[in-house]
Formats: sequence, structure tokens, C-alpha cells
Amino acid sequence: MNSNRFPLRAGHAARFFNDNLGTITTAERVERLNSLDIHEAAGVLATLPQQKAVRILGRPELHHAAAMLTEMPVEHAARLLNATANDRVADLFQEMDEGARAHLFSKLDRATSLAVQHLMGYPPRTAGSIMTTEFVSVPASWTVERTLEHVRKVERSRETVYAIYVLDTETQALISVVTLRRLITGEPQASVLSVAQQGGIVKADPLMTQEDVARLIRKHNLLALPVIGEEGHMLGIVTVDDVIDTMIADQTEDAQKFGGMEALGKPYMTISFAGMLKKRAGWLCALFLGEMLTASAMQHFEGELEKAIVLTLFVPLIMSSGGNSGSQATSLIIRALALGELKLGDWWRVLLRELPTGIVLGAILGLVGFGRILLWQSIGLYDYGEHWVLIGVTIFAALIGIVLFGSIAGSMLPFILQKLRLDPASASAPLVATLVDVSGLVIYFTVALLILSGTLL
Amino acid sequence: MNSNRFPLRAGHAARFFNDNLGTITTAERVERLNSLDIHEAAGVLATLPQQKAVRILGRPELHHAAAMLTEMPVEHAARLLNATANDRVADLFQEMDEGARAHLFSKLDRATSLAVQHLMGYPPRTAGSIMTTEFVSVPASWTVERTLEHVRKVERSRETVYAIYVLDTETQALISVVTLRRLITGEPQASVLSVAQQGGIVKADPLMTQEDVARLIRKHNLLALPVIGEEGHMLGIVTVDDVIDTMIADQTEDAQKFGGMEALGKPYMTISFAGMLKKRAGWLCALFLGEMLTASAMQHFEGELEKAIVLTLFVPLIMSSGGNSGSQATSLIIRALALGELKLGDWWRVLLRELPTGIVLGAILGLVGFGRILLWQSIGLYDYGEHWVLIGVTIFAALIGIVLFGSIAGSMLPFILQKLRLDPASASAPLVATLVDVSGLVIYFTVALLILSGTLL
Repeated sequence: MNSNRFPLRAGHAARFFNDNLGTITTAERVERLNSLDIHEAAGVLATLPQQKAVRILGRPELHHAAAMLTEMPVEHAARLLNATANDRVADLFQEMDEGARAHLFSKLDRATSLAVQHLMGYPPRTAGSIMTTEFVSVPASWTVERTLEHVRKVERSRETVYAIYVLDTETQALISVVTLRRLITGEPQASVLSVAQQGGIVKADPLMTQEDVARLIRKHNLLALPVIGEEGHMLGIVTVDDVIDTMIADQTEDAQKFGGMEALGKPYMTISFAGMLKKRAGWLCALFLGEMLTASAMQHFEGELEKAIVLTLFVPLIMSSGGNSGSQATSLIIRALALGELKLGDWWRVLLRELPTGIVLGAILGLVGFGRILLWQSIGLYDYGEHWVLIGVTIFAALIGIVLFGSIAGSMLPFILQKLRLDPASASAPLVATLVDVSGLVIYFTVALLILSGTLL
Repeated sequence: MNSNRFPLRAGHAARFFNDNLGTITTAERVERLNSLDIHEAAGVLATLPQQKAVRILGRPELHHAAAMLTEMPVEHAARLLNATANDRVADLFQEMDEGARAHLFSKLDRATSLAVQHLMGYPPRTAGSIMTTEFVSVPASWTVERTLEHVRKVERSRETVYAIYVLDTETQALISVVTLRRLITGEPQASVLSVAQQGGIVKADPLMTQEDVARLIRKHNLLALPVIGEEGHMLGIVTVDDVIDTMIADQTEDAQKFGGMEALGKPYMTISFAGMLKKRAGWLCALFLGEMLTASAMQHFEGELEKAIVLTLFVPLIMSSGGNSGSQATSLIIRALALGELKLGDWWRVLLRELPTGIVLGAILGLVGFGRILLWQSIGLYDYGEHWVLIGVTIFAALIGIVLFGSIAGSMLPFILQKLRLDPASASAPLVATLVDVSGLVIYFTVALLILSGTLL
């Protein structure tokens, strides 16, 4: 597209990387390219030998890869993409704007464009969208020797040979998996099935979520997981390195959501100022609006507040304890749900654990709180008045109620979100704190009314 | 040890798994064993064919594996361990009590006991402690054919053949890495070096942290990473599946710490009630003690509170906004540090981003807060008195100060912890909220004094 102003000087890349010895790794090249601006980086990438450029393009860590491709002469970009893993090409197309995508797409070779179109048809975050269609398969009728011969031939063109998939000669359905290391131990003239794995084949549906794919790969210690379509046809494989990338991205998302914001989707230093504000302001405002109910609750108890200003002193302390115990419970349950340690139906088991836990934790904090009032009163640091014992009892009882409520609300919220088919990871620490703050105030003043009525109130 | 009361009935395991067809996977067997009590599970495990039992023992998902081994006749347990991957055996020994460990250790064969002793010598959470010493290495003088022959021979005994490591004939130092798929493409009579990987070898030091090992494996898309000792000797490999397990465990730990507690270290439903209390009560008490400073701050401003009770109504709202913005900033920075997107020296870049972000976010919340007072006052929901505009301005200004302080404190805390060589992931949402609460109160009342002095105060 921009071929007239594009620097395709020979030796450009070699000079940039200064690697006539070929000792720097692809990951290092990616880092060096990331430090350049898009135009410069595209120039270096375009003058690298194709094999090296393709390895660099294959890395999701490369910044602005889609933009670099649109900077290059379109035929050159297409040549690189034809040689790049199909799943990565689909991801790159996803990042391009409509015009550049259509133009470049028309220049791809037929096999690549078909595969990419196919991959882009799957919903994001499913096995179909993260799989690669480049895998090695052989008919069940082949011998070990013929299979080895085939692997030797395709070794250079396939992303990675993790395993060889054996298909039924008639139906093309996947019937067995052979690892490379078993294959080389086989008798050359024996059937490829003689070295096949025993036991069931672990496989995924193309619409399986990427989280479930990651869980299967982890559970069975796989290097690649075959994705099977209707009628048992094999569509592709999800490889362990794609799953690691997926896991990292998911966990970053979960951590940011738990912090009380939308997931950034980009590294902290590369997101724009406006983008950062957008991701943070939304939840912050929502939480602020929710937290406004605390002002209403305080207004409701204004009469009590005026009569016993001493009660206001403990409002922040008591409220935060509810939030903290809720945050603990939420982080435990979100993680246990994410790891599959707990299922939706386990909510009542969790409730039965959190009930005594909340009561004991609340009583511990309550004793500390009572101790503080006792101590301050006895050494004369502060005078809580003649009813200081009753105030201490109020604090003790309120803390049990609030920590219990925090533990229960915090542990049940992820289940409720999951039940509503929302992401349990949206149950952030600030969201739980906000929920617990309002009810915490109500619990506190209700307990105070019960205990202090007739004395202070 | 308990051989007299131990059920070694033939066919026991086959009946339990009901799998004469051999179609259930190792992961499924592990799940079924986890549903039994230790004694029963040990009985089933002991009667399985050795190869199957070893595969099950190799899974870290198996509950109480160490206890099961001590339930079995010691010779039988030793036989199983001799055939299990050394890194796993070392982990299992770590979980046994002293007596059982010594007794069982004395029955291991010499190669296994030496390797396990070696592995147990490395500090936990290092490359040395998670590596396996079982890898395939050949001298550089070998041909492709001889190497293939060797791989065929060891295939059954090694954990997994991810790559073949080529050692210098003289010094035994690692000089090159050959993948299985490159090996089979080589000329049989050519040197094994002819199919070696070009470029530098990515390697780890035995004392490298497991987080850094995971980062290297991810960065270079490796299936295994060689661990190199002094003088260039190869000590072992860390494999991608061990790294995935490590990543999951780390993330669970980080998520729980961010929730404001010690990492459980066990699944939610299997930890004891006392264990759960211990992990949660410590931080909860520490945060409670810290939060007590809010009571002191409130006492300090008691005069102002009495004069303008209306100010207390907004205390929870204002405090929580500081905590929420701090929680957002902390989760962003912890994650960016964990992924290596940010380094310790980047703290000032982050500060320069958080300054304007905090001011704008605070101003947004301030406007919402001011709007609330305006609205309530105009439609008559609440009467803030004749100085309601000044109260609104106080809320607006205090929110800017507090959200700014929250963003800065929240983003700098992980850096400070890292600088102090503590885990940045200990900067939990509740810890940040507690830090911000006390200073938030001081900011709020100081702003109120500045704006309302002479009118309300």
C-alpha cells in the first residue's frame, strides 16, 4: 500500500539486529522491535529473511503487528502471512481495520484465506477461535514408516508437531493419537495404530470456552488438544503455548476485575490516558452511586448520631471490617470456581463453612475492639462516658454481625453471578465492600439501638 | 509398615475402576481416588499395575499421595517411587513426616535416592526444586542414528522426551539442543549437531525463582527449559506442565493475598476449619488494628463532628472512594509487575500517569457527589442547611484529594514492597483501603476546615 515510501533496503535488518552470528532469539528480536516506532519496525521486519520474520510475527508479544503489516507492501505482507500459523493470522486480521483487512485478505493464498475465514467465524474466547488448523494427520491405514516419512516432509511447514492424529480412512473421524516419541519406537512396517495411545482421546468442542480448554490441557498434561466438529471431523488443535497465553490474559483480566475495574486489555504503560479513564471511571462511579446509600443510611440514623456522637467514631472501623472479611471470602470463592474446585451446586456447602467462620472471625475482632475501648478508657486516653461497657458490647456484637454478613455476602456473590450467567470474577473487592458497607451501617445502628436504648439512645 | 492390615487383594483396583477396557484416563482415576478415604485409596493404588499406579502418583492433583504411600507396605511404596519422576518423588517426600520419610528413603534404589536428595537440597520455589533430573542427553560426537536409537531405548523410562540435550564430550557442558522433530529429519550418519537448534540456548540457573522460570518458558514458547549448574553442567529440566501447575498455584496465591489473607495453600473445601481461621484471622486483625487509627482520627475531629453532624453523613462514602481507587491502581500495578511489563525503576512513570488519572477520576466522583447534594436539596429529600453549597464544594474538593491519594498510594505500595524485597502481591485491596481510610479522613476534615471555617465550623 505504501510501497513507494517504504524502506526495503537490503541488509537493513541484519544491521539493526547486528546478528550475522544468528545468536539472538526470536523473543529478543521481538523486544527490540517493540522499542521502535511502527514504521521503523515494519521496515526492519520486511527486510528480514522470511523464516525469521514469520517467527517474529507469530509472537503475540509483538506490539502493533497488524499495523506493521498494513505499513508493508501488500504482496510482501501476504507472503509473510501465508507462512504464518493460521490462528495467529486470524488474530492479526481481528486487529486490522476493515479496509486494510479486505485488501490484504484478497492477496492471501487460497488455503490460508479459507482457514483464516473459518477461524474468524468462531466466537472469540472459544476453542475454535484459539485453535490452529495446522496439525499433522494420517489415515489409519498407514504404516509407522510412511507416517514418519510424512512427518519429515511437513516438519518445516507446520507450526509444531506435537502429536500425529490418526483418522478413520472412511469417515475421516479422529480415532487415535500418536506421539512422536512413540512413533520412533515403532516397527517400520507395523500399522501406525500399533504405537497409538491407549485409553480415550481427550478432545474439545469448537465452542468450548478457552477457560475450559485450558482446564482440560492442565488436567491431562497435554501439549495439544484436538478440536472435533460435528460428525467427528477434526478441525484443529489448541497448543499448550496458546493456552499459557490465554491463561495469563485471563488472570490479568480477573485480577483487574477483582480490583474493581474493567479489564484494561493492554499493558499499563501502552493504554491511552482516555482508555485508562474509561476502564476505571465506570466502575468507580457505579460503586460511588451504590455507596451513596451509606449517606442515606446515615441520614436515617441521624437522630441516634446526634444523641451519641461517640457511635460515629467507630463507623469507619466497623464498616471496613465487613468489607475486609467479604473481600477474603470473595477472593477464595472466585478462585475455587475458576479452578473448578467448586461448582455452582456447592453454594450451600460454602455457606455452611462461612457461617461458623464468620462468627468466629467476628468474635475475634469484636474482642479486639472491646479491648481497645477497655484500654483507652482505663488508661484515660479517651472517655467514652459512663456507659462505656455498653458501647464496648455494642461494638463486639456489631462486629460479629458485620463480619458474618461480610463473609456470607462475599462468598455467595460469585455464586449468584455465576447463576445469573455473569462472570463470577466481576465480584470485586470494592463491589463486595460497597454491598457490605450499607448493610453494615444498618446492622451497627440496629445493634446499637437494641443495646443502648434507654441509656445513650 | 501397616502391611498386616493392608488389603492387597488381586483384582481390587480393576473392580474399583471397572476398566477392563482401559478407556478411562489417568486424570479420571485421580478424581475417583480423591473421592475415597486415604486407606481405601492406598489399597486401590497398591493393587493397580505398576505403570498405571506410577502415572497416578505423578499427578499433583492426587490428594494425600504422601499419606497413601506411608499406608502401603514400604517395599511396595519404594518400588512405585523408584519408577516415578524424581521431581515428584522429592515433592512427595517434602509432604511426609520425618519418620516415614527416613524409613521409605532407605528403601529407594541408589539412583533415585541420590537424585531426590539432590533435588530436596534446593530452596523451595526455585528452578532446582521444580526441575526433574530425568532428561535425555547425548555426547556431541554421536550421529543422528545413534541418538535416535538411544531415544528409543530410554523412551519408556524418562518422564517425557521434550528435547535431546547435546553435551560436550570433554567438559559435559550443554552445547546444543535438538528437538525430536528435527532429529527425525536428519541424515542417519550425520552428526547430531547437524540438526541442532540455531541461536543461543535459553537456560536457567538452579536458584532462579519459579516465577522467572515460568516467564522464560512463556517468553520463548518452550516445552522444557534446561537448568545449568556451575561449570556449565546440566542438572535437569523444568517442563511446561510443571510450569503450568506452578503458574496456577502462584495465581491462586496472588488472588488470595489480594483479597486480604494469607494464601490457603489447599483447596477451599479440603482445608480444616482451624487452618482456614488461621489464614484469615491474622490479616483481618492486622487490618483491624490499622483501621483503629480511623477511630483516633475521628476522635481528633470530634469537635468539628459535633458542630457539623452533616459532615459525618458522607464519611463512609468518601472513605470508600479512596479505597476503591486505590484497589484499582494496586491491582493494575501488581499484575504489571508480575508480568514484567513494569520494573522497579518505572515507579516514577507510573506516578506521572496516576497523578492526572487520580485528579480526573476524583473530579468525576466529586461532580456526582455535588450533584447528589444539589438534587437532594432542591427536591427536598434532605435539608443540608443554609451552607449546602459550601458542603457540596467540600465534598467535591475532598473527593479529588482522596481519589488522588488513593490512586497514588495504591500504585506506589507494590513498588515499595518490591523495593523492600517483599512480595508486591501482598499489597491487598483491604490493605490499600486501610491505608487510604485513615489519610482519607484527615484529608476530608482538613478540606472541611479550610472551606467551612467561619460558617459551619
